[in-house]
Amino acid sequence: MSTISKAALATLQRRLGYEFSDQALMIRALTHRSAVGEHNERLEFLGDAFIGFIVAQIFFDRFPDVDEGTLSRLRASVVSGRALAQVARQLDLSDFLLLGESERKSGGRHRDSILADALEALAGAVMMDATHTEAQTVVARWLAESLDAASPNAAADAKTRLQEWLQARGEPLPEYQVIEVLGQDHKQSFRVECVLPCRKLATEAVGTARRRAEQAAAELMLGKLTGVSGD
Amino acid sequence: MSTISKAALATLQRRLGYEFSDQALMIRALTHRSAVGEHNERLEFLGDAFIGFIVAQIFFDRFPDVDEGTLSRLRASVVSGRALAQVARQLDLSDFLLLGESERKSGGRHRDSILADALEALAGAVMMDATHTEAQTVVARWLAESLDAASPNAAADAKTRLQEWLQARGEPLPEYQVIEVLGQDHKQSFRVECVLPCRKLATEAVGTARRRAEQAAAELMLGKLTGVSGD
Repeated sequence: MSTISKAALATLQRRLGYEFSDQALMIRALTHRSAVGEHNERLEFLGDAFIGFIVAQIFFDRFPDVDEGTLSRLRASVVSGRALAQVARQLDLSDFLLLGESERKSGGRHRDSILADALEALAGAVMMDATHTEAQTVVARWLAESLDAASPNAAADAKTRLQEWLQARGEPLPEYQVIEVLGQDHKQSFRVECVLPCRKLATEAVGTARRRAEQAAAELMLGKLTGVSGD
Repeated sequence: MSTISKAALATLQRRLGYEFSDQALMIRALTHRSAVGEHNERLEFLGDAFIGFIVAQIFFDRFPDVDEGTLSRLRASVVSGRALAQVARQLDLSDFLLLGESERKSGGRHRDSILADALEALAGAVMMDATHTEAQTVVARWLAESLDAASPNAAADAKTRLQEWLQARGEPLPEYQVIEVLGQDHKQSFRVECVLPCRKLATEAVGTARRRAEQAAAELMLGKLTGVSGD
């Protein structure tokens, strides 16, 4: 799609639960840098900061007894690119994105980063269009399911623990890559590699979802690291 | 200091340009985790997000033509630990911090991280005590000098360029260490080392201020890296 119809804009605004006074602002928020016209990167910068702030505030109020390390982890679970892309999919944002030709052809509208960026840009656009309180309410509603899923008691998953282990030692983050997709359309499984380039270490695992395979590979890597280092 | 007198609280509030309805909130913001009583780490989490948001918004409005990469760099120059510690010093926050005995004895009240954290906690406390608009005005006033010093046209300094070069390659941040302090009290100079543990590379430089020596060491490291890699 290279323009958006009035009907489509109306549909999207119903889903977002917000009607823009300035429709151009909404269109800009949907415009990827590959497309013609003013793109959404500045709005994304603003929306990222806005989302980070309101999520911090919500968890601060909701969990008066958890420490700031747990608050940070809770927030990260909601504001990560993957989590925001998930929210964007629930709002069916991909139907409304304006992309350049090459991104359109390569399936850019389904990519996590493009979806998350557009959601952030829409948050920035609402922030500019509405009062602060109104914007806060609208954006918190988009995130409600993610916010409710975050629990201070959940043990950190293997990828998070691996990341924390590495960060505590000032080392770079692991890289995850799908190295093989096995099986047919609806019964696929994924062979995933977890790599620490700096240490020249790699582990592999297979799972029926990419994320599950990544978690398993991260768990194996943690075993390797804590085995090796005697931690 | 293990408690704060009423007179001191009044002085601090004059400096901050804000009078708290809830004085306990202000005291909590000044309480380091090493001290007895409720400490400031949760407020710091909140204030960090709040400052990040208002600084993003200010630069977004102030520089309508700069791209989001530049906006990020401008923001980083204001919200970095070092920059916030500088603001805390201008407000003479160190006179009002509540620290445990060992931090008190080891000069904790002059440490960048403790000062920056207390400033963030105070921002969080103002945010909880005031309306959003009021809190925004108060905190933006604290940061005014930093905000005004940030220019989209300033070339990135060597440390920033080194960091960006490494981040673009997914590598860990460099470590800077003072390895020697030369000369007497008021005519000191610093020998600083810049280390990339992952690449096992190090450079050294001397400067009359630690920061200047770090910049010089970073510049040498950039030369080494771009010389080696042919970038």
